[in-house]
This record gives sequence, structure tokens and C-alpha cells, in this order.
Amino acid sequence: MGCSDTDAALAATVLLSADMRGIDSHGVARLSGYVRLWEAQRINGSPAIKIVHESPSTAVIDGDAGLGLVVAPFAMDIAIRKAQIAGTGWVSVRNSNHFGIAGYHAMMALEHDMIGIAMTNASALVAPTFSVEKMLGTNPIAVAIPAGTQPPFVADFATTTAANGKLEILQRKNEPAPPGWVQDKEGAASTDANVLKKQGALLPLGSDREHGSHKGYALGSIVDIFSAVLSGASYGPWAPPFPAYVPMPENMPGQGLGHFFGAMRIDAFRTGQEFKDNMDNWITRFRNATPAPGNDRVLIPGDPEREMETIRTTEGIPVVSSVVDELKNVAEKMGVKFADTIR
Amino acid sequence: MGCSDTDAALAATVLLSADMRGIDSHGVARLSGYVRLWEAQRINGSPAIKIVHESPSTAVIDGDAGLGLVVAPFAMDIAIRKAQIAGTGWVSVRNSNHFGIAGYHAMMALEHDMIGIAMTNASALVAPTFSVEKMLGTNPIAVAIPAGTQPPFVADFATTTAANGKLEILQRKNEPAPPGWVQDKEGAASTDANVLKKQGALLPLGSDREHGSHKGYALGSIVDIFSAVLSGASYGPWAPPFPAYVPMPENMPGQGLGHFFGAMRIDAFRTGQEFKDNMDNWITRFRNATPAPGNDRVLIPGDPEREMETIRTTEGIPVVSSVVDELKNVAEKMGVKFADTIR
Repeated sequence: MGCSDTDAALAATVLLSADMRGIDSHGVARLSGYVRLWEAQRINGSPAIKIVHESPSTAVIDGDAGLGLVVAPFAMDIAIRKAQIAGTGWVSVRNSNHFGIAGYHAMMALEHDMIGIAMTNASALVAPTFSVEKMLGTNPIAVAIPAGTQPPFVADFATTTAANGKLEILQRKNEPAPPGWVQDKEGAASTDANVLKKQGALLPLGSDREHGSHKGYALGSIVDIFSAVLSGASYGPWAPPFPAYVPMPENMPGQGLGHFFGAMRIDAFRTGQEFKDNMDNWITRFRNATPAPGNDRVLIPGDPEREMETIRTTEGIPVVSSVVDELKNVAEKMGVKFADTIR
Repeated sequence: MGCSDTDAALAATVLLSADMRGIDSHGVARLSGYVRLWEAQRINGSPAIKIVHESPSTAVIDGDAGLGLVVAPFAMDIAIRKAQIAGTGWVSVRNSNHFGIAGYHAMMALEHDMIGIAMTNASALVAPTFSVEKMLGTNPIAVAIPAGTQPPFVADFATTTAANGKLEILQRKNEPAPPGWVQDKEGAASTDANVLKKQGALLPLGSDREHGSHKGYALGSIVDIFSAVLSGASYGPWAPPFPAYVPMPENMPGQGLGHFFGAMRIDAFRTGQEFKDNMDNWITRFRNATPAPGNDRVLIPGDPEREMETIRTTEGIPVVSSVVDELKNVAEKMGVKFADTIR
């Protein structure tokens, strides 16, 4: 795709981090989708990513239509550098594309003893509370917080009741969706896992007004505004679609997708040791909370992904055959030798 | 309570802003509770609030056990001043008390053409996903974003499915709670609106694992860590209780309640005019989204509170008789003339 070796390796690392952490929907299964966007000339393989505005603790970055997998680590690195000097760094990005899992970028801050934050807007699949129209993406938020002897706290979640990837799993199994995940094209409650293909919509975290969907709607909106309105990307229903066959929205008010990153140096608040001792205590206390009947234990954010990473480090990553076929097609098309470890 | 006239007026303004915006649970109805905390020597009426650590874009503040209603605006003001110089300002606060509505403090940023953020931890009423134990408070998040000709975007919400105030309304009406709001002391689903008095718990936004309660749990945890672990306040199940008759937790790991505030100068990212034009477009587009059947219109965060403020500005604030009686008792006890406009 015209990527430098460095960029290609970085993009591969970001995609693999999703597979390693068990977020299969955002790993190598997406590679062919990125290639199709490049073929449709919506992704620039060799972007000139640049800072277009900055202050001591902020920057706005133009991704030059690059792979989000490459633009996002660039931007997070700027946030970290700003934090080294100003205590915190905050970077809003325009003119980018899908950036993989938010958690990868947030976790870049950990080795610098910083809290990392990453979010992105995405093409509109979500109907706000009271709306039949799809206005927001699944707009995820990731927050990574370092600890001492305990592993870090890593939250990484879509601001919807269920992520699109969970619907896809039900589609494959031909099973219905639980009530509260989706609505149909008329805005009525639905349990049809295929409803997005029939002009239906995902619901914000909270599902309905009585269960706080206005809060999930607010969260998704905040992600949209921080990522796209602060940077000059395209927001709300105008966010560019991921599937290359979907036409771009008309009258887009900005450039490409938007992201938002934050880095906060722990010792800009407290000594690192005091903070880490408290975080270890926080994590240990929450892990030891009395579980409700039928549950073994209480988890902290990041536990399931970390446990999956341990398993996959030894056992490898299971890849469904349709994805293997897609990867073979991509390899053939791009003239790349297909790794014989993938089978 | 030993407050200066300035502090007393500020505290009254913050409480009244809740009543004006229709958040009756956080307005003058709370005044007698603050007085009881002062009587129990848990609130210091004349605190020496001070910055204990800072960097160009951050500060940690010790509230000296002051009224949160006074400590929070002090801290938000520091965040705004940091943002004026560094682009953004981030302030974590320890040794404080209940700060009223988060939205008041976040909205302080608006007149400076900044985005404002406010959050606080609170005494543990919420059971994490899979837990029978209460580990977190309702830990609200407020984000205020300026617009141009449109009114600002103001989100202000507890990270639970329903705030405690909504349960109290049902208790007065002797009505059950909707499924998904609370669990009983065994960790089983419940619709008993009085369940918190029977060792039950509120549920995180999302209600249960299938509907994303692990996301609400993560959000509440992030608020707890930013507010209390970053500052050195008491976190998780050790957060000090609001009712003065509830004993303080044993082995508290920090001082008092914690808050976290942020201010981001719009023009540290884009010119104010570009941003405001885009925000006006964002707000107008979302307000004009096609409503689902049975709904008049789609709202943006802050619309209901602003509409209530307009009504109450002309019609006054309805106060239930039990609160009027409590206010009379407080006035008598403190030797203050009771306003004859309250009846």
C-alpha cells in the first residue's frame, strides 16, 4: 500500500495487539477492509502527518488520510512528549482513518509512568435516545492507568450497550440479540441480530431512557466532539464509513475521522511511588470484593484481555477460515509471501 | 458554620443552581445534611484551601476538609488559570466534601471559551459487575462545551443506571424501581426502591453484564481514581459517607472525598470561531434528527435542565414541605432570619 517498512510494522503490531487481547473484530480480520479503503483511495499509504496547531499542553494533527493504525501512535507520542514538559498532553486528530483498538494507544503511556487516554469517532451506527436516525459511531473510550506490582488498569469500551463485533458473532450463530442492544428502522425495540443490515441501529450504553441511554448518548457525543469538532474532522452522521463500498456522506463538514488522545504524568500530581502504592491497594481491594452468587470473582478493567494475552502467547491466535482466505487474497494481490504459520 | 460571607454566598449559588436546573436532590434539600456534617466536625467552615503540588498544566489541591461547594469552584478556577497559559488545566482535589452538582463547576469554563470537566467520587453505594459488595459511589461526570449562537452542550450524569435521587422519588410514591436499577444484599436482581436501606446496592450504568455494566463500572472506577488516587483522597469503599450519622470507614487510605477538574481552551486546538460554527452545526443537526415514534424530538445534553431553568426563573422553585421544615430548623439553629419568600 506504499507504507514504509516502519509504518507497516507498526500497523501490524497494532492489529496483532487486538488479536492477542481477544478483540478479534479489530485484529487481522480488518486487514482486508483497510486494503479496500486504500484501493478506493480513501487511505494514503505514505501520509505526511503533521502538527497544524499547538500550545504547551495541546496539539492538533492532520493525519493526511493515513492509516489510523499509524496516525494514532504518532499523535499519542506527541501527547506523551507534551506531558513530559507540561504535565499533561492532549492531541486532537483530523483527516485520519480507523485506528484499531483504542486500548493500544492509551497503553503507550504506561511505560512513561503516565495515564493514557484514547478515543475516536466512527461511522454512524448508533441512534441517540428518542432518535430513529443513526447519528453517532460506537465511539470507544480507552483509559490506561499504571500500577506498581499489580498489572495496569486498562478500560477499553464502546459507548454502546454492545459493540458491533458482538452482533456479528450472533449473526454467525444465527442467534437473536438480547433486548436492549438494537432497534429496527422504525425505532422500535428489536432482537434481530441482522438489524443493522435493515437500516436498524445500535443503542447507546444504557439501552433506553429508563436505563440511562441518555448517558451513553452523552458519552458518545463527547467522544465525537473531542475527536472531530476540536480537530476539524467530520463528525456525527457525516463521519466516513469503514466499508469501502459505502459512499461517503454528502456535505462532509470536516476531513476524515477524528481521534483524541491524552497523557497525564503521574508525578505532575503525586510522587509515582505514592500513586502506585495506592493503585496496588485499589486493584487488590476491588479484586477481593465479595462476588455475587454464581460468580467466581470480581474483575478489574483489563483482566479479561490480559488473561487472553497470556493464553494466546503460548497457544497462538485462532483465526476463522474466512479471515484466512481473505488474508491469502490480500497476500496474493499485494505480491506478499503468505506466512505458512497461518493456517 | 464559620464560612466567610463570600464562601456562604458561593455555596448558596452552587446549591441554588441545582434547584434552578431541576436537580432537586442536590439543591437546598441538602443544606441540612451539610450542617449535620459540620456539627459532626467533618466539615471545616473556614478552610485554608491550598495547592500542594503543581506543574504547568496540573495541580493537586488540599481542601482542608472544607465544603465541597466552596473547594470545587476554587479548584476549577485553578484549572482555568492553568489553561489560560498552558492550553489545558487539570486539578485533582483531596480532603474535600460533597460538591453539589458537577455541572456547575464544569460550566464555569464556558465564559472563558473553554471546555469544562468535573467529576467526584462519593460514598460507596454501587456494586461493580459480579460483586455483591458496594465499592463505588455514584461518581458523576460533567462535561460543558461552548457553542456559538446555540446554547452550550452540558452533560452531567451519575455513572450508574439511575441516580439515588430517582430512587428517593419512587420511595416517596411507594412505587417499585424498574428492573436493572438495583440489586439486593445477596446480589440478586431487585425492584425494591428501598433496597439501599436493606444493604442492597445501585447498579453501574448498563445494569448487568449483558447490557454493558462492566462499562459503567469502568467509568465509575476512572472517576474514583482520577479524583482520589491522583490526589490522595479516600477511594473506593473507603470514601467518606454523606450522612453524618454513618460512621467513617476504618483504615481510610487518604483524606476526605476527591474531585477532578479539567479546562481546555478551545483556541489551544482551533480558532474559537471555527469551533463554535461547527458546534452550532453539530447541535442543530442532532436536534433535527428524526424522532422515533412516540417522541416529539431529539434532545442534546443540557436541554432539559436549561428548559427547567427558564421555567423556574419565572415561576420560582417548588420546595417540598419536609425540606421547608428542615430549612426552618437550620435557620433557627443558626440564628438566621428565615426568608419569608420560602413557604
